[in-house]
Amino acid sequence: MQLHDFRLSGNCYKVRLFLALLGREVELQQTDLLGGAHKRPEFLAVNPRGQVPVLVDEGQAIYDSQAILVYLAKRYADASWYPQDALSQARIASWLSFAANEVAKGPGQARLHGLFRMPGDLQQAQQRAVQVLELVDAHLALHSWLAQGEAPSIADLAVYPYIALAGDGGIDLTPYAHLAAWFARIRALPGYIGMPGL
Amino acid sequence: MQLHDFRLSGNCYKVRLFLALLGREVELQQTDLLGGAHKRPEFLAVNPRGQVPVLVDEGQAIYDSQAILVYLAKRYADASWYPQDALSQARIASWLSFAANEVAKGPGQARLHGLFRMPGDLQQAQQRAVQVLELVDAHLALHSWLAQGEAPSIADLAVYPYIALAGDGGIDLTPYAHLAAWFARIRALPGYIGMPGL
Repeated sequence: MQLHDFRLSGNCYKVRLFLALLGREVELQQTDLLGGAHKRPEFLAVNPRGQVPVLVDEGQAIYDSQAILVYLAKRYADASWYPQDALSQARIASWLSFAANEVAKGPGQARLHGLFRMPGDLQQAQQRAVQVLELVDAHLALHSWLAQGEAPSIADLAVYPYIALAGDGGIDLTPYAHLAAWFARIRALPGYIGMPGL
Repeated sequence: MQLHDFRLSGNCYKVRLFLALLGREVELQQTDLLGGAHKRPEFLAVNPRGQVPVLVDEGQAIYDSQAILVYLAKRYADASWYPQDALSQARIASWLSFAANEVAKGPGQARLHGLFRMPGDLQQAQQRAVQVLELVDAHLALHSWLAQGEAPSIADLAVYPYIALAGDGGIDLTPYAHLAAWFARIRALPGYIGMPGL
């Protein structure tokens, strides 16, 4: 198994984290995002969207970080990470969309401006980030894990990185006690690994 | 089954469309988005994200349009709409993320500015929209359907509405022959329904 990776990407990290929790080896291939490697023809032949991460397994390229979590869960994980009944799958899909949309546009975008100095409206991204943090914190006041009360699922792994990295976008995480407790539960999972900034 | 709906929302339409293709009845409850009904406490008690659509089935509220497609497919549809093997699920999840992220930020956002006069950077949204259209058109040059070559899946329903509605955001769809052929294939599905603007 091979992962087209970038060490500072929260989307790549969520895949590395799940692989570590599953105890699976992966060959990491670093992608020079700052040098534009992901927009070159040889990379676009692997992923036309020009994004990392890309997982290559058994000759198949799988991209989008949420999709890779789905793949790994179905293929290599205990069913608790991605239960198969309709309601559980819908709850998880809802959080995967939230990761791809609200989390990316909020704390993810704020971090791009704050840490990587990408142009854009930092203040607007921070406002969105605070809404995201408040919403997830309120949810976690009532539930231990995002999609299921009793056990972690790929929903937690999809949403966790850019929320935990919100400080890189100038967001103060200290008001959110339920987020802090959830971070601690995730960090206590056997096999947990961190990333720069966490 | 009940759907908190808004007739002009492409996200609500994708759910109405799938229900129509499945031949299932649903009670539509219109939500006055322009009057802010989705930000009032009674709505936030159903969906804390303050968004439509919300499907209520057997006492459970399911939200996020992609998650509702997953739920309906698992619960009520032929398996071809959402095959259960790891690779098919990953391919579909990848397009669901694309719908939640790139499609929403591109043609979806352009339409919000163009049709509903929401403030924001119309030109940037249009540039993103063109990238999305080019990418999907190139994919459809090689495949009849988005996630599987041979049959429609919920990936097609998730991506279709805001691409087909791109004209509302000032985008010219005429250069994209493979999109036009895909639209025709979708519109020929038994039970197909349209929406205002399509």
